[in-house]
Amino acid sequence: MQTPLAVSEFIVPRWIIPIEPAGVVLEGHAIAVAADGRIVDVLPLADLRERYVADRETTLPDHVVTPGLFNLHTHAAMTLLRGVGDDLPLMQWLTTRIWPAETALLSEDFVAAGTRLACLEMLKGGTTCFADMYFYPEVAGKAAREIGIRTHLGITVIDLPTVAGGDADDYLDRGLAMYDRLRNDPLLSFSFAPHAPYTISDETFRRIAMLIGQTGLPMQIHLHETEGEIEREVAQHGVRPILRLERLGFINASLTAVHAVHLDAGEIRLFAERGVSIAHCPASNLKLASGIAPIARCLDAGINVGIGTDGTASNNRLDMPGEMRLAALLAKGASGRADVFGAHRVLHAATLAGAKATGLDDRIGSIIAGKQADLAAFDLSALEFNPVFDAASHLVFVAGRESVTDVWVAGKRVVQKRQFVADGARAAEGRGASDIALWQNRTRSQLAARQ
Amino acid sequence: MQTPLAVSEFIVPRWIIPIEPAGVVLEGHAIAVAADGRIVDVLPLADLRERYVADRETTLPDHVVTPGLFNLHTHAAMTLLRGVGDDLPLMQWLTTRIWPAETALLSEDFVAAGTRLACLEMLKGGTTCFADMYFYPEVAGKAAREIGIRTHLGITVIDLPTVAGGDADDYLDRGLAMYDRLRNDPLLSFSFAPHAPYTISDETFRRIAMLIGQTGLPMQIHLHETEGEIEREVAQHGVRPILRLERLGFINASLTAVHAVHLDAGEIRLFAERGVSIAHCPASNLKLASGIAPIARCLDAGINVGIGTDGTASNNRLDMPGEMRLAALLAKGASGRADVFGAHRVLHAATLAGAKATGLDDRIGSIIAGKQADLAAFDLSALEFNPVFDAASHLVFVAGRESVTDVWVAGKRVVQKRQFVADGARAAEGRGASDIALWQNRTRSQLAARQ
Repeated sequence: MQTPLAVSEFIVPRWIIPIEPAGVVLEGHAIAVAADGRIVDVLPLADLRERYVADRETTLPDHVVTPGLFNLHTHAAMTLLRGVGDDLPLMQWLTTRIWPAETALLSEDFVAAGTRLACLEMLKGGTTCFADMYFYPEVAGKAAREIGIRTHLGITVIDLPTVAGGDADDYLDRGLAMYDRLRNDPLLSFSFAPHAPYTISDETFRRIAMLIGQTGLPMQIHLHETEGEIEREVAQHGVRPILRLERLGFINASLTAVHAVHLDAGEIRLFAERGVSIAHCPASNLKLASGIAPIARCLDAGINVGIGTDGTASNNRLDMPGEMRLAALLAKGASGRADVFGAHRVLHAATLAGAKATGLDDRIGSIIAGKQADLAAFDLSALEFNPVFDAASHLVFVAGRESVTDVWVAGKRVVQKRQFVADGARAAEGRGASDIALWQNRTRSQLAARQ
Repeated sequence: MQTPLAVSEFIVPRWIIPIEPAGVVLEGHAIAVAADGRIVDVLPLADLRERYVADRETTLPDHVVTPGLFNLHTHAAMTLLRGVGDDLPLMQWLTTRIWPAETALLSEDFVAAGTRLACLEMLKGGTTCFADMYFYPEVAGKAAREIGIRTHLGITVIDLPTVAGGDADDYLDRGLAMYDRLRNDPLLSFSFAPHAPYTISDETFRRIAMLIGQTGLPMQIHLHETEGEIEREVAQHGVRPILRLERLGFINASLTAVHAVHLDAGEIRLFAERGVSIAHCPASNLKLASGIAPIARCLDAGINVGIGTDGTASNNRLDMPGEMRLAALLAKGASGRADVFGAHRVLHAATLAGAKATGLDDRIGSIIAGKQADLAAFDLSALEFNPVFDAASHLVFVAGRESVTDVWVAGKRVVQKRQFVADGARAAEGRGASDIALWQNRTRSQLAARQ
């Protein structure tokens, strides 16, 4: 008999949904986590005890543990503008609410405060990694880093001047400088994040293509969100945006198409053949009346579909459990097929698919030995969550972010029994109320001044 | 100066959304509740203090108070079958899961236990009244009554024998006997609830029409839920079900059409002209892939649209706040109009519209003097609910059932700081775990025996 190996923690829930292998719910198993934050093993508890000895053991008797959820698209800092303009048509929403507020308020302090608030909300709801697209990404990255959430930072580019950048080259130069400074941080990863085809010139796209060639970074872009933008692009460029990006060399496995609400059959086939990922944002697409993405057909074609909340200005929650439920329901209802986007596929979309889209699937997205211990525990003991016949479908259709009790990032417990326990998160929580009050007042003043 | 009048309670929240008048958010106001459970007045706090003196005062500094939510369609007892078959096509779901489980398990005890569980879930989430359609309605009514939730009981009828009734006349006779016994209970009201056109003969419908004439009760029926049922009805009766009901004399203000997913322009016009109400169940319609109801057009036509969760077997939550959010998002996304089904209209749908559909709008559905104090308080203080720019849109798009802290039914506090405080609710909660364990095991055995 071998001497047991020392590990940092045993996590002993009622159920584990490891995502890999697919479609499995483990019962009576436990997870061994190493001091370096990685998963050492997932085994029946008795076997785990034979092979390992842990510094501490966390028992979660009514809980299901999943990989931490991956929010594949958001604009974290916009959380300060949560609900600033609801029930408005898209252009009125943008021109009378969002753009004026952003123009007046955008600053490093705004981004830091908004990102902190977003990270706390996401962690508390089981999200351990998010792909962000916003101004001042270095500020956002540092704020997120202090709190202890894993972050996929967009090097945001737009062919419009703002206080955060004079032109596309300026955004790119600043983004690359950030990348050089932060690239070795184990919780940070990066992508190019040009805003959308209708705000990016061919020249800027060509520079991004060259930089992708040099860095190997992936790219995320808003794509085919509304019919109107497609029509305007066709009028300007003669082709639909996806074909324009294809001509520029972007339609490949490095690309995550955000929204992808309006896809024709050829575009779905092209995405599938080239390994393009989709960041599906169902709540935002519905709320802004952009349409309903053809997710059933995308899944049939084999496209890697992840899930994002988009920003709170168009959602208004950074609630990945809620987004999973909505994505599942909507795919069924819109396709007329009740068996589409079943629970295990939705859980895959909210975890491993996001990791794959961002090139992080060797590190996160499933509960297997060697990956980072990014984990979320959902307590299903409350009356309103019972009875439980199938932990996987229960997670998607019954549980919500309010069920999340414990969250780990890279093996470090950030949330314990619904409370923030990591120092960075506690510090951000302590600042939360004054952050909110300050920026809420400033936003109100700005909007009032315009009326 | 007059002597202040004695009342039972002042409720002093940050915001009140009274529903009547429409579109209003009151700030700095308070509600005076009388000992008989009715709302005495809604006034600015200082004015209220001048006119009334209260036995107790409940301060809710970060809360918005609304009328208790009205779940216009559910099958409460089916909560014991929550998630028993997910991600299955409708007919496979019915024939391999729901019907076999019901056939094996249906009994008075099943209905009592399931209804208790459902009532607790609904109350905790801010629902103070629900319209129920299930077998053994008298058992359900008594269970609900003990817990202290207001209940609109369906006199359920189906032209199929079950343990709960031999034929349509038997269901009706039992239902009428129940109505005679329970009709004076202030928390109970009644409707005829024939299951659906495809399970009810013309003869049965004619008896129901006669009984409606005698009793003045309203009627609720599943109607145009799927395209398949409409096609089969056309083949059998030569007309679509709504036209069949029109010929039988049912298309009038006494009728609530449950689901109404598939309505043509003429049917929408007919419903509007005759004052038919709709019980919109968006989650269930999506989950079973029945389709997306044309709610934007129904609202445009002026139809009274309420909201229901349907049963947990097809939802799987009895979560009216979640259903409000989904209804709003879906109406916008499906219609392409972001300004459709705005927050105030959705709140109206989840409160006063349900009351109107069931003939209870003189008693409940809004916070005005003389109505019953059926109220729900939502706490918006948590970081993930901030900032708050508009309490109404916040309730619909940000808050969830997890925000509900306090609930009153007829002036009696049932939930206080998220805990059940009324005796009946506490007793039911105490039995909850053993109820769940018992019926979960029986259900598992039945389903296993079939496989």
